[in-house]
Amino acid sequence: MEDLIYSADKQQPSSPLTNPWSKKKESSKSPKPKLGGGFVLVHAGAGYHSESKAKEYKLVCKRACQRAVDQLKAGALAVEAVAAALIELEDSPFTNAGMGSNLNLAGEIECDASIMDGKSLHYGAVGAISGIKNPVLVANRLLSEAQRGKLSAGRIPPCFLVGRGAQDWAVNHGISPCPSEKMATKFSLSAYKRNKRKMELAEKMDTGHNQGKKRRQSSENENGSGCLDTVGAVVVDLEGNVAAAVSSGGLAMKHPGRVGQTMIRKLLKRSCRVECPAAAINSFVSLLMKPKTKEFFPSCVELIGYPHENAAHYGCGCWAENACNMNPYSTAVSTSGCGEHLIRTMLARECSAAMQSEDAHQALLEAMQNKFISSPFLANEDRVLGGVIVLRCCRCLEAPPSQNIQGLLVEFLWSHTTESMCVGYMSAQDSRAKGWRHILCSSVLQVSN
Amino acid sequence: MEDLIYSADKQQPSSPLTNPWSKKKESSKSPKPKLGGGFVLVHAGAGYHSESKAKEYKLVCKRACQRAVDQLKAGALAVEAVAAALIELEDSPFTNAGMGSNLNLAGEIECDASIMDGKSLHYGAVGAISGIKNPVLVANRLLSEAQRGKLSAGRIPPCFLVGRGAQDWAVNHGISPCPSEKMATKFSLSAYKRNKRKMELAEKMDTGHNQGKKRRQSSENENGSGCLDTVGAVVVDLEGNVAAAVSSGGLAMKHPGRVGQTMIRKLLKRSCRVECPAAAINSFVSLLMKPKTKEFFPSCVELIGYPHENAAHYGCGCWAENACNMNPYSTAVSTSGCGEHLIRTMLARECSAAMQSEDAHQALLEAMQNKFISSPFLANEDRVLGGVIVLRCCRCLEAPPSQNIQGLLVEFLWSHTTESMCVGYMSAQDSRAKGWRHILCSSVLQVSN
Repeated sequence: MEDLIYSADKQQPSSPLTNPWSKKKESSKSPKPKLGGGFVLVHAGAGYHSESKAKEYKLVCKRACQRAVDQLKAGALAVEAVAAALIELEDSPFTNAGMGSNLNLAGEIECDASIMDGKSLHYGAVGAISGIKNPVLVANRLLSEAQRGKLSAGRIPPCFLVGRGAQDWAVNHGISPCPSEKMATKFSLSAYKRNKRKMELAEKMDTGHNQGKKRRQSSENENGSGCLDTVGAVVVDLEGNVAAAVSSGGLAMKHPGRVGQTMIRKLLKRSCRVECPAAAINSFVSLLMKPKTKEFFPSCVELIGYPHENAAHYGCGCWAENACNMNPYSTAVSTSGCGEHLIRTMLARECSAAMQSEDAHQALLEAMQNKFISSPFLANEDRVLGGVIVLRCCRCLEAPPSQNIQGLLVEFLWSHTTESMCVGYMSAQDSRAKGWRHILCSSVLQVSN
Repeated sequence: MEDLIYSADKQQPSSPLTNPWSKKKESSKSPKPKLGGGFVLVHAGAGYHSESKAKEYKLVCKRACQRAVDQLKAGALAVEAVAAALIELEDSPFTNAGMGSNLNLAGEIECDASIMDGKSLHYGAVGAISGIKNPVLVANRLLSEAQRGKLSAGRIPPCFLVGRGAQDWAVNHGISPCPSEKMATKFSLSAYKRNKRKMELAEKMDTGHNQGKKRRQSSENENGSGCLDTVGAVVVDLEGNVAAAVSSGGLAMKHPGRVGQTMIRKLLKRSCRVECPAAAINSFVSLLMKPKTKEFFPSCVELIGYPHENAAHYGCGCWAENACNMNPYSTAVSTSGCGEHLIRTMLARECSAAMQSEDAHQALLEAMQNKFISSPFLANEDRVLGGVIVLRCCRCLEAPPSQNIQGLLVEFLWSHTTESMCVGYMSAQDSRAKGWRHILCSSVLQVSN
């Protein structure tokens, strides 16, 4: 394990933010550090990624990291930076979130997204929302509205909205609608047509044979091509606040209104080339021990990924919790994979809880093994598929003692039972990572006013 | 603590079931005990109940218990019996679930429901569903479909559907639609009109003053009248399988599509007459120590209750887990109260986990205190409002040793921070309860075939 020491970045942000989200920053009433900094880790899904699109995945992960870091440098809190990263990931036509999302059975786009602020422990989520380009914006707005307090007549603001009601709420809160046809891409449309044909064929075959039994055994007939991956991020700011978010266009050919479902495809078979899940996790976590560029570490093979359908579920898609009396570490988690598996195991929350152990690497291994792969909630599943990105931090005792300096020890790691997981990471400093795991941020403390 | 010993009920069911749900029993492929029995505990919400309607609450709780017991006697599994109880509770116009549900801001009915089977650990839920008389039927059908395995083309069946997609799925699966106007009652309609006038008045007052701040402080202006309560049940069958379910018409005047929100009303102030939450819980749990009729134990004051908006959230509305290697007890939990509070603390799952401690009473007290009232997730809430019904069971070592006899020790209790909670309980035996807590069921074992 190698420690990385970054010096404080004392530059003020130079470029104005063009993303509409940035205009809403003033809605947060929390004081912000005058000199920003922090760390971001993003993912573009756990699954099986196309080598031919590796460049695009790499670029979007880089841009998402940069967007979050820009926010952090401008003094934004973690929750604002994580939303900025998600918007960049959603805007990419190569990810299955926001633009270019999978189409459901009815040929429509319905997205899920959630965000959690480790400081306030507030949470915002949308499920099966249509006609909104950036679902994470709505989730984030729900979160910030909840932090503002009660509505008229003493009503508590909602934390989770679904369907048409979610879209109406978003538009009423100043988030522009976007026609679904503009959100579909050439790729997602052709994938929809291809998948529809295959489904119809499979159903015809089922009807022709013993329907009751046959339809339950036809998972091997499906070609998973056309399925793009979902996105998430975890962030820590210089104050040690953590935040996490996740966003998904959902499963291709899902039932309208579906929240928390996924499709077993050929890609799932392929991911099972890694025969021993425990070994696979070990291996993948170990990859973090090798020095890499700080932006991106993909395992790309082919343009296929797992839809991430647990995005709206509390405790399943993302989790963030600042340190408190009982918990020495602030932790943030974002998950990806087979939504059904992630929901029923509450993987994000389980991994967050595990991160309070001393050895983060060992704790994540054990959590993935005991709470996911060997979970009694998935006892009848032949394939358990998922991935997590995890970040934890605590005050660093080795930091130079000074009234104006605070040290944060940041550890980040990821794990997946799938063949590949696209992640990117970056600190607010300009220097490249010198190792993989421990990062010491030392910088000027925020002066409260 | 007093033990209750029931002899096995060996009668076959005599009356045919008229509920349409009963026709779907054959969808479950699990073997059923030839001679049925078990125990049911139901609730009609934690909140503040009208004394004038006490009789109706009592009746519906009794009927729900009887319905579940009829199922158990017919050899149904716990999950089937719990669904039967919920249907009875939903059908009552006095509960805020199914028929007579609260209307949302748009004057429509949108319901949430979920059900969990402790044997398979499967879960089914619907959120913001309209036009279905018994939302729990849809949740239960989702659960049973999930247990059947994959769909055509290898798709995993959904466990959570929302909005229009949920309604369409239900109708496609043979569940009859019901026009919303038929589900509204005279009472729910007049409550809607009254609440709408009050909300408009409150918003006018806010506009007239300092809007930004004022709207956050107007919770005291609201009269909570017209708000009925939500429902849930937990069941154990003779094999020791547990199941839990919950159903809610949601908050009066909620935003369409809202899942997980509630309204702080005058009633919440009134419930805070119990000034020390810890003492309140102690008191309420202690009530169980007094011998009562086995059907019903209400604390009725006035026709007001808390909407239960967490019904669709995994881990929040209900939880059921059969005993396994690590857990000596089978546990089932159903919650009620302020949805926002129940969701953010995942109260159902927390209480279920707590029930693995030796002393159930003490464990529930501690869970309610540490995981709910003092939860860091509700640190900024001035009132923490909720209630749970809890059931746990284990093999009873004191049962007469015999090859054909199994003994189950069943403990059940409830706790709430609210002023009242309506519950009913009943065993499959005819004899009245002789105490309150420990119940020994001994009966003929199922012969596997």
